[in-house]
Amino acid sequence: MYRILNKVNSPEDVKKLNIEELNELASDIREGLFNRLTKIGGHFGPNFGMVEAEIAMHYVFSSPYDKFVFDVSHQSYPHKMLTGRKLGYIDDNHFSEDSGYTNPDESEHDLFNVGHTSTSISLATGLAKARDNLGGCENVIAVIGDGALSGGEALEGLNVAASEINSNLIIILNDNQQSISETHGGIYKNLKKLRETNGSYENNMFKAIGLDYIYEENGNDIASMINVLKKVKDINHPIVVHINTKKGKGYKLAEDNKENWHWTMPFDRKTGKPIFSYEGEDYTSIAREYILNKAKLDEKFMVITPNMPGSFNLNIDDRKELGEKFVDVGIAEEQAIAMASGAAKRGAHPLVITNTTFMQRCYDQISHDVCINNSPVTILLNYSSFDGLTDVTHLGIFGISIFSNIPNLLLLCPTSKNELLDVLEWSINQEKHPVMILMPGNDVTERNTLTNFDNINKYKLEQTGKNVAIIALGDFYQMGEELSKKINNELGFLPTLINPLYASGIDNILLDELLKEHKLVITLEDGILDGGFGEKIASYYGDSDIKVKNFGLKKKFYDRYNPLELLKEEGMDTESIINYIKENI
Amino acid sequence: MYRILNKVNSPEDVKKLNIEELNELASDIREGLFNRLTKIGGHFGPNFGMVEAEIAMHYVFSSPYDKFVFDVSHQSYPHKMLTGRKLGYIDDNHFSEDSGYTNPDESEHDLFNVGHTSTSISLATGLAKARDNLGGCENVIAVIGDGALSGGEALEGLNVAASEINSNLIIILNDNQQSISETHGGIYKNLKKLRETNGSYENNMFKAIGLDYIYEENGNDIASMINVLKKVKDINHPIVVHINTKKGKGYKLAEDNKENWHWTMPFDRKTGKPIFSYEGEDYTSIAREYILNKAKLDEKFMVITPNMPGSFNLNIDDRKELGEKFVDVGIAEEQAIAMASGAAKRGAHPLVITNTTFMQRCYDQISHDVCINNSPVTILLNYSSFDGLTDVTHLGIFGISIFSNIPNLLLLCPTSKNELLDVLEWSINQEKHPVMILMPGNDVTERNTLTNFDNINKYKLEQTGKNVAIIALGDFYQMGEELSKKINNELGFLPTLINPLYASGIDNILLDELLKEHKLVITLEDGILDGGFGEKIASYYGDSDIKVKNFGLKKKFYDRYNPLELLKEEGMDTESIINYIKENI
Repeated sequence: MYRILNKVNSPEDVKKLNIEELNELASDIREGLFNRLTKIGGHFGPNFGMVEAEIAMHYVFSSPYDKFVFDVSHQSYPHKMLTGRKLGYIDDNHFSEDSGYTNPDESEHDLFNVGHTSTSISLATGLAKARDNLGGCENVIAVIGDGALSGGEALEGLNVAASEINSNLIIILNDNQQSISETHGGIYKNLKKLRETNGSYENNMFKAIGLDYIYEENGNDIASMINVLKKVKDINHPIVVHINTKKGKGYKLAEDNKENWHWTMPFDRKTGKPIFSYEGEDYTSIAREYILNKAKLDEKFMVITPNMPGSFNLNIDDRKELGEKFVDVGIAEEQAIAMASGAAKRGAHPLVITNTTFMQRCYDQISHDVCINNSPVTILLNYSSFDGLTDVTHLGIFGISIFSNIPNLLLLCPTSKNELLDVLEWSINQEKHPVMILMPGNDVTERNTLTNFDNINKYKLEQTGKNVAIIALGDFYQMGEELSKKINNELGFLPTLINPLYASGIDNILLDELLKEHKLVITLEDGILDGGFGEKIASYYGDSDIKVKNFGLKKKFYDRYNPLELLKEEGMDTESIINYIKENI
Repeated sequence: MYRILNKVNSPEDVKKLNIEELNELASDIREGLFNRLTKIGGHFGPNFGMVEAEIAMHYVFSSPYDKFVFDVSHQSYPHKMLTGRKLGYIDDNHFSEDSGYTNPDESEHDLFNVGHTSTSISLATGLAKARDNLGGCENVIAVIGDGALSGGEALEGLNVAASEINSNLIIILNDNQQSISETHGGIYKNLKKLRETNGSYENNMFKAIGLDYIYEENGNDIASMINVLKKVKDINHPIVVHINTKKGKGYKLAEDNKENWHWTMPFDRKTGKPIFSYEGEDYTSIAREYILNKAKLDEKFMVITPNMPGSFNLNIDDRKELGEKFVDVGIAEEQAIAMASGAAKRGAHPLVITNTTFMQRCYDQISHDVCINNSPVTILLNYSSFDGLTDVTHLGIFGISIFSNIPNLLLLCPTSKNELLDVLEWSINQEKHPVMILMPGNDVTERNTLTNFDNINKYKLEQTGKNVAIIALGDFYQMGEELSKKINNELGFLPTLINPLYASGIDNILLDELLKEHKLVITLEDGILDGGFGEKIASYYGDSDIKVKNFGLKKKFYDRYNPLELLKEEGMDTESIINYIKENI
């Protein structure tokens, strides 16, 4: 086990191996991947498919002198194992030392913290241009693929590489015939033709815009990959190296079901079954069920997603059932939002679904294509909570701060199953407002709600009390309830409790009412404070006699934290808040 | 004069004309354009180049049944004249009725308020998809060109049109061989080859990804345009209609200098000279001069722009002088920012320049490609003020709200010439922080400043007073000074006056100090309040005894307002603020 990998401590060691040893190294790396991924999960298919290519990259080039930029960087695990970080894979005690993405804090071989797609070519053009201006002759190598080429930033990067870089720039296009789900877009038709003709198809999208191009059929063969990379090493102009690989290579189940094995929870290697299974209802399945039902009832309904049906568990059968009402635009958030605006203008009821972290990729489209035009588009975002995804590149904690400040956009944070379903139904049926809904991130609860939300910015007064008013937004409402009980128990009075729902506006009637019987307003929100909900309340009350304390996270790129510990550290657990109230009331 | 145009009150009237009349109509339209543009300015070249094409569009198609989507929509003036809005051009009393962009409030022939580029194809895919789902057989026509094709959203749109739309969608590509400045990018190499071969060049970027394609050499000939549009009308799949036009067609000066005549101030038709000329120093010329000097002194310095050298008056000679230190990536903001991050990582000192309104097109790139990586990129934005650009699609008033809440990003708002130059110099030389600088939008002033800004978030205490503290950000600092004098005169005490500079952070030491001698803190900022600077101050002081009043604009898409009147309406003129203070102190 790990016979060759044990000898490899840096890329220099890779260069000493012969082809048999390199092939054995590939097996060792896959064993290392299995060891980590069966136990803690992570990106499976992208890494299994790129083992040979990354070994060849380190064999031919000399990192960190030569610069590798991995797109998304969820396929960089083999590279990590070859650059001094194999223990994060083969030794269970070291798993936590390595993030699931490239990370300059871990190694000089990683240039960027990357987790969103379609950035590698653009980043590489900057490395290349600065090299040329400052002097240097290292190779700059961008790795892209796995569906990321359809993102606007990548296409802008190709366009600029083709005209503004007149020196070395190597773009390794990892064509595994798959994105997160299946690929969508005309460029994949071109890649298919190129594969079918061994790269010789005359109508070549890369050559069309002036890029050099070379094709390698055997992207999972180390000798072939070494051969093609040697050909392009030290080349004096940009070139696309189109390599054909198999996503999930080396694990039959993953090869056969690429979508399910893009990313995996911990699993049993023999059966492929997840080790932990979650019983009971969750918000994702509630939303999925709503979508499937709505499609049956509303002929105007459409679902548009930038390749994230999986975020709402819409599997291949669901998508088939949705038929023409389902549009996957591939990884292309800008297109998803603008398309939804166009569809709404033509009378459809579009719902855009993805993860919160990816929606910031189309800020301008939400603001202009949708909100200036007041297009009734509904956007439903998953993983909006601090305790969803904790990788620094996938945080959901910025959603309220980013989107609560765009004019015309209603940002709704439902607090329960009923409220989620009610706001979805209301939003998709109405034709006046752009609406964004952040999915609750905590345990599913049921409670009565309003069912008509036309009274914009009308908060729900859940409990009338005195002295202290708790305005608890979205999935922090449950914390508000808990706090309310504690105040009653420990301080002997019932506080007022409010479910604001609207993160994007102020209920000035209710807030003015609070002035009478309250000394302190507490706001709770699941996100950073800066630009968020609480600051709006603080500003509103700024020159009044009531005091306001905002509880939320710092403006900070948190990384791989323990959610409950984070709440304590930031003084946001109910214990800390109660103590604050005791001291300040 | 206007013999034919006088008869045209709707697209139906265009259809009744014969070819001679249509040609005369083109002349009439150009006369109308001259009448408006010589007197109030606007987009020149894009409109003069599209007169014939838009006449042909209305001759062949039936708007509003058929749907036109104009990209950027700064080329839609001929369309506006043909759809009931000619008075906005030929009658000086009606100029103000028409915006410079498509606007659904003006006419049912305009589908979207558009002002940022590269959106038309994506919007059109939505119109087409909804038409197909809901039933209908109108033509959907996206007009794009003038450099907009290099934007990621447009390329995403092409990619999706080529695979997800299996029905009518007509993309008119207006190839005028120009962008705002010259074009940049490999796609323009392909368009050139296609023009040179009358559309027959085999390596066609559109066909490569599966789009149908047709070329029209004579885009400024009505008969030819009618002919080609008739061919594609009611087509049952997406097609690109590549038309060759001349930007500025019909005015020799504009044809010869396309960049200068992209947009114009009021001018004398005979000489082409501007009617009003501004004497004296402005911040734009100060920044331009700094850039040119810096390039001579710092070999690591680079300027990167998404086709907006004109925003800082960097003319063609300046760009030549800057040489390899100047990179225009074309209209591609995402690429500009990511490239800058890559360049910074390789040791360069990159400065990205454009207008504030366009920077929101790369929110994700600023957050991830730059800020998570702490890349020392400097971003300098023009037109950040409420009294810069007042079109709803080009407002600068959202900059502070959007960018002050991204972790690691220092958002600096200098208040004077000295401070602008000092922060620029400091920012470009340091290698620790991503920095964004908002250009002041008011009259140039000179004042002493700090010259070392390493003490992050350290506000400048300009005057120590009592009772009231004024924290006046950026180009509202002068208003703060005026307010201070008035308070002294009318209320008989000297208030404290602070120039915070850092819009993105809190100087807690100074703010705590203020608690001693002050009852009221006034914040002034040149932008919307929601998510902005003042709310951070209000939140900080939320549970203290000091009162805070934030002055700023509403979260609203203001459109074509009078800046001074707006200040009054929003209670932000010094008169209103003084009255507020009198009532609240």
